[in-house]
Amino acid sequence: MFKENNAGVTLAKGFKASGIKAGVKKSGKDDMAVIFTEKAATVAGTFTTNLVAAAPVFVSKDVVKKGTAHAIVVNAGCANACTGEQGMKDAKAMAALTAKELGIDASDVFVASTGIIGQTLPMDKIEAGIKLAVAALNENGSDAASKAIVTTDTYQKAGSFSFELGGKTVSIGGIAKGSGMIHPNMATMLCFITTDAAISHDLLQKALSKCVGISFNMVSVDGDTSTNDMVLVLANGMAENAMITEENADYEKFVAALEKVCVGLAQLVARDGEGATKFLEVNVTGATSFEDAKKVAMSVAKSPLVKTAFFGQDANWGRIICAVGYAGAQMVPEKTIVSLNEVVVFDKGMGAAYDEEALKAIMEEHDITVNINLGLGEDKATVWTCDLSYEYVKINGEYHT
Amino acid sequence: MFKENNAGVTLAKGFKASGIKAGVKKSGKDDMAVIFTEKAATVAGTFTTNLVAAAPVFVSKDVVKKGTAHAIVVNAGCANACTGEQGMKDAKAMAALTAKELGIDASDVFVASTGIIGQTLPMDKIEAGIKLAVAALNENGSDAASKAIVTTDTYQKAGSFSFELGGKTVSIGGIAKGSGMIHPNMATMLCFITTDAAISHDLLQKALSKCVGISFNMVSVDGDTSTNDMVLVLANGMAENAMITEENADYEKFVAALEKVCVGLAQLVARDGEGATKFLEVNVTGATSFEDAKKVAMSVAKSPLVKTAFFGQDANWGRIICAVGYAGAQMVPEKTIVSLNEVVVFDKGMGAAYDEEALKAIMEEHDITVNINLGLGEDKATVWTCDLSYEYVKINGEYHT
Repeated sequence: MFKENNAGVTLAKGFKASGIKAGVKKSGKDDMAVIFTEKAATVAGTFTTNLVAAAPVFVSKDVVKKGTAHAIVVNAGCANACTGEQGMKDAKAMAALTAKELGIDASDVFVASTGIIGQTLPMDKIEAGIKLAVAALNENGSDAASKAIVTTDTYQKAGSFSFELGGKTVSIGGIAKGSGMIHPNMATMLCFITTDAAISHDLLQKALSKCVGISFNMVSVDGDTSTNDMVLVLANGMAENAMITEENADYEKFVAALEKVCVGLAQLVARDGEGATKFLEVNVTGATSFEDAKKVAMSVAKSPLVKTAFFGQDANWGRIICAVGYAGAQMVPEKTIVSLNEVVVFDKGMGAAYDEEALKAIMEEHDITVNINLGLGEDKATVWTCDLSYEYVKINGEYHT
Repeated sequence: MFKENNAGVTLAKGFKASGIKAGVKKSGKDDMAVIFTEKAATVAGTFTTNLVAAAPVFVSKDVVKKGTAHAIVVNAGCANACTGEQGMKDAKAMAALTAKELGIDASDVFVASTGIIGQTLPMDKIEAGIKLAVAALNENGSDAASKAIVTTDTYQKAGSFSFELGGKTVSIGGIAKGSGMIHPNMATMLCFITTDAAISHDLLQKALSKCVGISFNMVSVDGDTSTNDMVLVLANGMAENAMITEENADYEKFVAALEKVCVGLAQLVARDGEGATKFLEVNVTGATSFEDAKKVAMSVAKSPLVKTAFFGQDANWGRIICAVGYAGAQMVPEKTIVSLNEVVVFDKGMGAAYDEEALKAIMEEHDITVNINLGLGEDKATVWTCDLSYEYVKINGEYHT
């Protein structure tokens, strides 16, 4: 089981992490993290599909192509996006400076940035920060690292657990940041996962892509896909399990574990959506394809009218069925059933006769499940989101450049 | 030129209108309107593409198919959507009751409803209201009609003007309602247009579809496509211009006039978006297709992060270029130029060196133009939207079912 805990990226054997204050954030909060494995790790990654990708995205994509790495260096406070040639130079310098401090090659260092778009990195602060962060690396550093990568998050997002693989104890865990500009597509906000499992590069990438597709890519806070999204996984093999090189039972077990980490962290991101007062799970079943199910779930999860209704604790199912209808997926009102938790509100073309009091009690809960059965096929999808509150507008109307 | 005025649907010869209180709205405000032409009008319409369409949409689609009509009956306060067989029966009854009072056939009456989804119409009130509304029909009734169809709108939306066609004076005008659940696709909120031009059914439909495509379909307040959207146009021919039966110069002149009405009313809808404090025009040029230009403009217009930034009067161009990047259209950051009014903020891959004070002054204006030149081709599109404010959340969090 995925366990929310501070061990995050340092539960797996051989991983160290740190988080320090480099001075990039105006608030003076911690804003730089390093994750390191002395033994080279097999790596995989998924990245933003935004055509305006930030410089660190290009640098990190190259590391994934190479297949192995030793470290990740991350800064918050400045996204290093839309920064042209200077931005690329700076992102490469971040890798080189980190590599120098760690005594490794620059091509072994992932680079990630998050924060305001359009500003160049204060490289003097970054350079001093990297020295501090590398010096601070330790086996219990995940908590400090996860603290240093957050922006408007209200809490840190981390978790890890161990499981058995071919007689060996394997650990896996990760840290993530979320909150704003959250509507991943093929990739997501920042998320770093470490494991001591031994697995080939190809299968690690395959496993990650699969898991991201049903976790981070199924979260929407505000429909905006960031320029800096990335999910990285580093597997250093120190658990000494028999190297996973084919899609056998061990592979399935590893995928299940990775999925738990991805889904667990993705849910934490939705739960901590900017200004969220509700956590919403939208389950679509009975679709004729996964794509259609996802379209319907996303349409409901993204509808500002649905999101404000949940904020107002109003069981306005009309807005839900409206969003189902314009999702662009196959649907027939007369075959569709919608329920909030267990209470059916829309039953095949019309409002259902439900217990008003029971529904009112559900709307007052923090966690609410919206179930939509399209009654057409066997495919399904689940999306996690949050409501739309005054606070979202406040946070984003006041987060000045 | 489109003129915002109260003459709306009654400037054209032979049209009467009225607006009265039927008692459907809990607020006690006017909630029923009738528009009538004694001479049968050639008609055209565009309707919501939402698969969960309201009963009146089906009834009115049939009238468009028939090609001519005499009247429109509209109620606010109850959408008659998701109301099953009862809803269809009620919508047909609305047409029949109106026809009876007017001494015409039920198939000559358009029906439209707007309001809460999932409730059935209070037919006793509707019946009494129809009698009142027909009795109140008069040649200056447009103002009363436009007042009766609004919901969360903060002002009425109406306009009309006259122009010359083959030596005859032709008038055209319309009324609309907007504000919430506004993200048309092939059709829109409620909009009724009348003209005394003489034009064939086919060309009227062709002209309307074209004009809706570049007006109402280019407006987004909140990304939600309503179940009840419709735009209707009635042309009764009383201007006695030579009947337009081919795409000649007269047709082009008529299309230009219809476009002015559609664009004028569509802009009023965006300007009065729920909670709006800003009116935003998003112009995309240099695209390789209209579809791509529209995708980019809509992506920017729908981004909650962009919309809250305008609410906060923050020139956060990073959020704009981010929304351009994930629009799903062809774009190359290094070829893209973004400006707010005349001030360039993003210039081919990087932030531009702009005058901070000049930009600050622009952000404080009520009407702001976002210009995005993709630098790739010759195609363009313009979308109108508004910002996202606390008030939007308040209106929609508190608009209870």
